[in-house]
Amino acid sequence: MPKPRVLSGMRPTGKLHLGHLVGALDNWKQLQEDYDCFFFAADWHALTTEYQDTEIIQESIRDMMIDWLTVGLSPEKSVLFIQSRIKEHAELHLLLSMITPVPWLERVPSFKEQQRELTNRDLSTYGFLGYPLLQTADIIIYKAHKVPVGVDQVPHVELSREVARRFNFLYRPVFPEPDPLLTEVPKLLGIDGRKMSKSYDNAIFISDPPEEVRRKTSVMFTDPNRIKKSDPGNPDICNVFSFHKVYSSPETVSRVNRECRAATLGCVEDKRQLAETLVSYLAPIQEVRARYLKDPRLVEEILEEGCQRARRVAAQTMEEVRAAMKI
Amino acid sequence: MPKPRVLSGMRPTGKLHLGHLVGALDNWKQLQEDYDCFFFAADWHALTTEYQDTEIIQESIRDMMIDWLTVGLSPEKSVLFIQSRIKEHAELHLLLSMITPVPWLERVPSFKEQQRELTNRDLSTYGFLGYPLLQTADIIIYKAHKVPVGVDQVPHVELSREVARRFNFLYRPVFPEPDPLLTEVPKLLGIDGRKMSKSYDNAIFISDPPEEVRRKTSVMFTDPNRIKKSDPGNPDICNVFSFHKVYSSPETVSRVNRECRAATLGCVEDKRQLAETLVSYLAPIQEVRARYLKDPRLVEEILEEGCQRARRVAAQTMEEVRAAMKI
Repeated sequence: MPKPRVLSGMRPTGKLHLGHLVGALDNWKQLQEDYDCFFFAADWHALTTEYQDTEIIQESIRDMMIDWLTVGLSPEKSVLFIQSRIKEHAELHLLLSMITPVPWLERVPSFKEQQRELTNRDLSTYGFLGYPLLQTADIIIYKAHKVPVGVDQVPHVELSREVARRFNFLYRPVFPEPDPLLTEVPKLLGIDGRKMSKSYDNAIFISDPPEEVRRKTSVMFTDPNRIKKSDPGNPDICNVFSFHKVYSSPETVSRVNRECRAATLGCVEDKRQLAETLVSYLAPIQEVRARYLKDPRLVEEILEEGCQRARRVAAQTMEEVRAAMKI
Repeated sequence: MPKPRVLSGMRPTGKLHLGHLVGALDNWKQLQEDYDCFFFAADWHALTTEYQDTEIIQESIRDMMIDWLTVGLSPEKSVLFIQSRIKEHAELHLLLSMITPVPWLERVPSFKEQQRELTNRDLSTYGFLGYPLLQTADIIIYKAHKVPVGVDQVPHVELSREVARRFNFLYRPVFPEPDPLLTEVPKLLGIDGRKMSKSYDNAIFISDPPEEVRRKTSVMFTDPNRIKKSDPGNPDICNVFSFHKVYSSPETVSRVNRECRAATLGCVEDKRQLAETLVSYLAPIQEVRARYLKDPRLVEEILEEGCQRARRVAAQTMEEVRAAMKI
């Protein structure tokens, strides 16, 4: 029996950080073992909010793809591709637009939410309204069974189920209804205690050299109630401890937990130890990264091959779609 | 200097009638002499309102194309193609969606108008909202300078000007702003005095055989105030007279005008004369039609060649679009 298919995408935001790693990529890497995985750079999606500043999209795709490869997404195991190179997504998006009521799109929670939050740009565009439908096309054109998402993205998968169901009902069953694949992910905040994000300038990047990792770790926020080293700390509210739980050995985690509470381990020393753990963790990843950086053609070849594989599947689905719609 | 380019499309509604001929095709035929013309079957547009009943689209395209050819649209002079075979329209539509405010689409008059009129189907879809933007993509992907339209379609061309301008401003000048090409067309009503339309069952088709033309003409509405043959008629409000003005010789027109007012020509005889004029007018057209019907492969070859020519132009524009958007 063939493995069930998983699809997921990521907007090209440039170099990735540890938040991307624990939030998605570690999970994707795992999924490769049990699923037929399709992972793509969602550059058309980037346009829905970044249409006024497209300068860096190409470079961002490249940086992101190198990070994907270096952390262990494998072109042997998965199909790695770029959305905009598979024109079939645009065709399916257009065809699905004919059967999708506008209110279905307006009630996707992220629509009004992002319009409220991203106040520095005009998001009243037709493309922004339609972006969950473009996601639907992205998903169902590969007949994906599972879509790994965070809980905030579940309504998008739900929309794609509704649209698939409507298509199957109006024409002929072509699409499986995709399920969200919810995974508990550890929460790592940025070095300032806010959400880790490139735009907050608080991220530790996968590609940060050792001295950069050490510098960033040294200024990380810890338990705000621990003023002096002699104050007992509370690891439960310490972001550095969250990092330990992800990257340090169980022995270290329990030692740090004990020594912090006993005030025998100070924050400075704690962070120094974490920094070395992160540096060691990133070392082999960055070694692989160096190899890809030396050979840019290799990355392009991997992508081109991934795009070809994706295109074959998408083109096959579109044949079925056109036949079903008699268009 | 190359000829300026004209683009126009028609939804595939099947066999065409005299209303299509005087309303559009006679004009298109003329335009072929002075412009570089692109004419297409808008089958994706048909989906915006007919998504629930797509059974007849393919046959309608074929019937319409045969009519185009038989009335004198020439594959030597013009590019004749089918929208859905040029996937680049879908890609450009998607890219333009990113920069097009929803209110620009909502304020196109036909949007609310059609929603009000076509009450027998659900037109609250994303595709229906976006269809003037798909028209924009259809037009500007060929860098058309002129779009022959009726006065009710001028707001659509105006939208395409606005979108082209916005693209050129945000990225780089790629698109000329298309102008509407308004043409006075004679108004021919259906045989029952309503707008001529297949769905009203009141149309005289280009492909109607002589006996059918005679039957339909014989039941045409004339001046409603002329009850008896001895009543003087008023050609100004007679639909049969409108037909004479298009299809009869100037001598016949002035004779009918005179004899009708003098009550020396009765409506029955008037319509008999018109019927013979129509039959003679359609005879050579139907002779050409018979040749195309005998050779269905010829029609497909003409279309395939037209699609190839259209695709070359559209693909070239998309190269420029992607370069301008850096996508």
